[in-house]
Amino acid sequence: MKISHIEHLGIAVKSIDEVLPYFENVLGLKCYKQEVVEDQKVKTAFIMVGQTKLELLEPTSEDSTVAKFIENNGGKGGMHHLAFAIEDGVANALAECDEKGIRLIDKAPRNGADGKHIAFLHPKSTAAVLTELCED
Amino acid sequence: MKISHIEHLGIAVKSIDEVLPYFENVLGLKCYKQEVVEDQKVKTAFIMVGQTKLELLEPTSEDSTVAKFIENNGGKGGMHHLAFAIEDGVANALAECDEKGIRLIDKAPRNGADGKHIAFLHPKSTAAVLTELCED
Repeated sequence: MKISHIEHLGIAVKSIDEVLPYFENVLGLKCYKQEVVEDQKVKTAFIMVGQTKLELLEPTSEDSTVAKFIENNGGKGGMHHLAFAIEDGVANALAECDEKGIRLIDKAPRNGADGKHIAFLHPKSTAAVLTELCED
Repeated sequence: MKISHIEHLGIAVKSIDEVLPYFENVLGLKCYKQEVVEDQKVKTAFIMVGQTKLELLEPTSEDSTVAKFIENNGGKGGMHHLAFAIEDGVANALAECDEKGIRLIDKAPRNGADGKHIAFLHPKSTAAVLTELCED
């Protein structure tokens, strides 16, 4: 597979409103979009840093996987997942991962936020980093 | 402060040798350097992805902070810290953080790996993400 760059880094937060002043007023980075992703039960805020987005993820429901991540992390949140931009197709990349014995969360690409095709790999196979493959 | 991009993402691992085949043979990314950072008690492996390095961190001693991170994380490791490239000086950036009430781990820049000036901010002030500011 061909990875061009880190597409985004997902950061789980209890409250976007609470942490956004740090990113905007201290680091000088600007949030350019917020949206609710209903099927993930999260509100997201996107911040561009060079080639990469920081994707702040705030759970909108207690049974969101992001809410569980925050709970399991002492209620604090933190870095949640790492997404690579795939140049030659997520379907190809998934097939290659499968063939090489990587444990997949998604057997086929699905639609993600921002009009992307995405698929997740299981952290058991990816150095304990929940990993997303994505393409426009 | 002016941040140009994500300089690196530190990933704590129990064994670089165990996880490197995933990064190299599955993701197709290449490790271009390994080094031991004595004062941090870690062995590091650097992998370039677009503008950003993945910095794999393997503890060389049980009393390394990275060893403690792995232990506190169910023995699994995972994403450890996020480093921003600062264009207008880490000393200036630190002074700005201090003035704005951000809790600092380093009161002044110090020398890091790879000939860089670095300083860490405390995760209590940074959305629970251990954050490094760095410049060449």
